[in-house]
Amino acid sequence: MTGYITVGNIEESLTAFIRDSNFSKIGVLVDENTRQLCLPIVEECLTSFVLIEIESGEINKNINTCNSIWDTLTNNGFDRHSLIINFGGGVIGDMGGFCAATFKRGITFINIPTTLLAMVDASIGGKLGIDHGIYKNQIGLFQTPHHVFIDDQFLATLPKRELKSGFAEVIKHSLISKNDDWELIKNTPFEQLKWEEIIRKSIAVKSTIVNSDFKEQGLRKVLNFGHTIGHAIESYFLENSTSPLLHGEAVAIGMICETYLSFKKSGISENELNSIVKLIMHNYEKVEIKSDEFSGIFELTAHDKKNARNKIQAVLLKSIGMPLIDTEINSEEIGNALNYYNSLNI
Amino acid sequence: MTGYITVGNIEESLTAFIRDSNFSKIGVLVDENTRQLCLPIVEECLTSFVLIEIESGEINKNINTCNSIWDTLTNNGFDRHSLIINFGGGVIGDMGGFCAATFKRGITFINIPTTLLAMVDASIGGKLGIDHGIYKNQIGLFQTPHHVFIDDQFLATLPKRELKSGFAEVIKHSLISKNDDWELIKNTPFEQLKWEEIIRKSIAVKSTIVNSDFKEQGLRKVLNFGHTIGHAIESYFLENSTSPLLHGEAVAIGMICETYLSFKKSGISENELNSIVKLIMHNYEKVEIKSDEFSGIFELTAHDKKNARNKIQAVLLKSIGMPLIDTEINSEEIGNALNYYNSLNI
Repeated sequence: MTGYITVGNIEESLTAFIRDSNFSKIGVLVDENTRQLCLPIVEECLTSFVLIEIESGEINKNINTCNSIWDTLTNNGFDRHSLIINFGGGVIGDMGGFCAATFKRGITFINIPTTLLAMVDASIGGKLGIDHGIYKNQIGLFQTPHHVFIDDQFLATLPKRELKSGFAEVIKHSLISKNDDWELIKNTPFEQLKWEEIIRKSIAVKSTIVNSDFKEQGLRKVLNFGHTIGHAIESYFLENSTSPLLHGEAVAIGMICETYLSFKKSGISENELNSIVKLIMHNYEKVEIKSDEFSGIFELTAHDKKNARNKIQAVLLKSIGMPLIDTEINSEEIGNALNYYNSLNI
Repeated sequence: MTGYITVGNIEESLTAFIRDSNFSKIGVLVDENTRQLCLPIVEECLTSFVLIEIESGEINKNINTCNSIWDTLTNNGFDRHSLIINFGGGVIGDMGGFCAATFKRGITFINIPTTLLAMVDASIGGKLGIDHGIYKNQIGLFQTPHHVFIDDQFLATLPKRELKSGFAEVIKHSLISKNDDWELIKNTPFEQLKWEEIIRKSIAVKSTIVNSDFKEQGLRKVLNFGHTIGHAIESYFLENSTSPLLHGEAVAIGMICETYLSFKKSGISENELNSIVKLIMHNYEKVEIKSDEFSGIFELTAHDKKNARNKIQAVLLKSIGMPLIDTEINSEEIGNALNYYNSLNI
């Protein structure tokens, strides 16, 4: 399944792909950022295309935006032999993929991720979807893009905060599989990381996991490490705060909380707990989470798609590289973990 | 693939299915008609369930209704171990299946079709979806229900006009495959048809075709016989008339038009043309289609999902039982076919 991912210079690979295909129409889905900063780089690879621009931001990853994308495809006569290029971050990839996979019951789409988060995470594994109300990715389906073209030159277009957000998934991948990735990122200052190498390693972890469990029946759930609490924090801030968190920023907090619960419940050593907390706190600003917000966050964990039969299930770690899926956690434990995070002073 | 279809007494088969499963929650999607007329028959097979009621009619097969279904599932805590039972006609099956297949990226659904149309057509073959603007089934995907339970006792709840609408698909199935179905329905008065036998035969035709081409790359397109023009007429009347046609009524006209084009272009004999026209005109009321409406109908054929590269493609017949896919037809030919239909006086 990793055969569909190309990491390297986009001008070459995309030009060859388009030249060797025979699509009736090509649509390029962008937001205002990727139109301005990234489109000029690939524009010449495409002979002609319909530009579909949506407003950036998770808040627009909803059915209304899908409606407008479907309208554009309809009005421009897209058919089952057409191609959609999702050119942007996770929102573009998730939503553009969902729109393509459901337009006329499915047309071909490829992803050109432009954020680190989309390169190492969202573009890999075929999870497509949109938010519904306050619930993230509540509506969607599983389908792998026809191809994913990854070129780290787009990372230069990102604000550092976005880059750091994607880095949270790199950290996660290094923690849930046995290899030397954790040692590498723990021991390399952020500014000295070689992105193409990091991306290849991070994709390798995710692809291996996804290939063995595409529909998330078991093993794939390990990718949810940091996300049970992280997603809930992200949703809570999106709804209740004037300064919402980026996905990776929320997942970073989620990883601290879930590593703390791993220390309390599933045997990770204090040493490993401390090294994980140290790397994360070094890379992400501390966020204030008031104790009267805990119940709202807990409430949101109850809607995680990986839950079964009203129990909150998280991925904990036995040690770095050894995740445990389907571990039940309760509201008191989540409160304790948030208190632990609040108490950190690094 | 036909293993997932049970034809026979619903009380027995559904009770056994529910008893042997272990769903966290069960949702039953109905409209006001199936709630009133059909639900009492199966209610006792289910220990407890959430009733999800939508308003009947193709006009409600849209994203707004999906939103309300997704809301209900969300608010009632449905998870990936829950079941949706689509209990009704084609609208319920298509839309309920789409909602289930996309809720949390897919939960289990079964269909209990209550109309003849849904029994022999919509429930078989995994086409899920909703309309978008005036375009039928523009948004959707391919996925087979976990199971389909068919019981002809529900046909007694249908108005005769609905039964006749479903009968159009029975006629279509008999015309596109080699067997004795056409002889049977041609020679049996409508009131004397044995529905369980007819349903089994009609499902057998569709299943065989669908099994060999699930994603409609080639052979499956034969099921589109009568639908290129029929769908366009249906959409046109939905938008422009105060008395919209039922799906099968539009397809009946479409089959006459496309059989006429088959006579002109692909070799069906005048004898076979006449026998098809006779059966259809005997069963369906003549509809007035004014010549100044032809261009609006033609315009709509251009959006058929089976088209490629802006050409209008239809299924024509070489003879009864011998369909030809991907035959290009143009606006003049469609006009001639509609004139032919208008000229009929049987």
